[in-house]
Amino acid sequence: MALALYELAGKDGRRFSPYCWRARLALAHKGLEAALLPVRFTEKASIAFSGQKLVPVLTDGANTIADSWAIAGYLEEAYPERPSLFGCATGRACARFVHFWLESQVFPPLFRAVVADIYDHIDPADRDYFRATREKRLGCTLEETRAQRTENLERFRAALEPVRKSLAERPYLSGDEPAYPDYLVFSLFQWVRGSSPLAVVAPDDPVNPWRCRMLDLYDGLARSVPAYDY
Amino acid sequence: MALALYELAGKDGRRFSPYCWRARLALAHKGLEAALLPVRFTEKASIAFSGQKLVPVLTDGANTIADSWAIAGYLEEAYPERPSLFGCATGRACARFVHFWLESQVFPPLFRAVVADIYDHIDPADRDYFRATREKRLGCTLEETRAQRTENLERFRAALEPVRKSLAERPYLSGDEPAYPDYLVFSLFQWVRGSSPLAVVAPDDPVNPWRCRMLDLYDGLARSVPAYDY
Repeated sequence: MALALYELAGKDGRRFSPYCWRARLALAHKGLEAALLPVRFTEKASIAFSGQKLVPVLTDGANTIADSWAIAGYLEEAYPERPSLFGCATGRACARFVHFWLESQVFPPLFRAVVADIYDHIDPADRDYFRATREKRLGCTLEETRAQRTENLERFRAALEPVRKSLAERPYLSGDEPAYPDYLVFSLFQWVRGSSPLAVVAPDDPVNPWRCRMLDLYDGLARSVPAYDY
Repeated sequence: MALALYELAGKDGRRFSPYCWRARLALAHKGLEAALLPVRFTEKASIAFSGQKLVPVLTDGANTIADSWAIAGYLEEAYPERPSLFGCATGRACARFVHFWLESQVFPPLFRAVVADIYDHIDPADRDYFRATREKRLGCTLEETRAQRTENLERFRAALEPVRKSLAERPYLSGDEPAYPDYLVFSLFQWVRGSSPLAVVAPDDPVNPWRCRMLDLYDGLARSVPAYDY
């Protein structure tokens, strides 16, 4: 077994990519260790072998898998004897639904709330690239997003309502034990934690105890990188 | 086996309650037949035995179960040898997430878009009750909701984006076969279909072919009641 995960690197050891965290937590769920290979935004040459330009990229012997969802599917199929990420076909399809829900309704306001802070944790060599690509996507400057920060944070917190309601009934989104749906949602919190001093949920939010349980998983894996703590 | 389902009845055979449709589709998924007992909004005496005032109520021999989610859970546990509604514990927890997602982000704009039409399909004896309770919830008259209908319909369609994205990859939200997550989402379409001439998704929306497949399930069960067709 020789696994390696190419993951996004910020400055000073920062690891904030939510997609890379999905891959790291999926590996941990399966009890698999992978060598971690840092890739900066503008260092795409190191993953050119994967035929595309985005991290995470997992290599497992002769296999190369790009895209966090594809990596989760690969691990589930390649290591079926280890704890399941999805539980069953319905669980897998529902996890994909959660993925798309995050992309369309949760990620966008959170991105706008924290993107200016992320900039401060990018390796200096990546800053021009980051500013140009993100400002194009935003339709405004990084700095201008700060004026709508409170509004976007409120939108993010409102979007989390189904998470809040689910966690009022059971310890994890996936039930009594964490599984891939938890890693999907948690990856956004880990993204912020590595890149912004913003406490994106209030201390008395029912989401918060779950967030702390997720930080504790796998010997505190998510705490093992430089981050803002709250 | 003597199953009976108390379900909400409108005028002229209308059956638009989404929660009752969840129960009917869950029964059909399990291959179970139940006697259907209509209950109007103001006829709560007939379900007083259940200790609460809402339909659906399922009776199965000596067992009485109220609440659509509780009914699904009961059926899954009481009839484990029949097709599973959830697939596994992760699937069940994710279905609950979908339930809460619908309640918080999908149902509210759709309710505002169609509530004035529902009024037209209520038994005349229920109209005062319906108007009073719904206008209190709305904070405006039923008629005033028509001015924001287009806006609410757009909000509903936007909220469906994760459904749309999921259905671009597989035939059902639950994967290759329909299961409870599909019944949850479809119940809102069936609600509108029984109570409003509004075509809530555009004909070219990728959600629409799935909606039609859902209408076809179980020998066209969802088509077996008076409804607007589109």
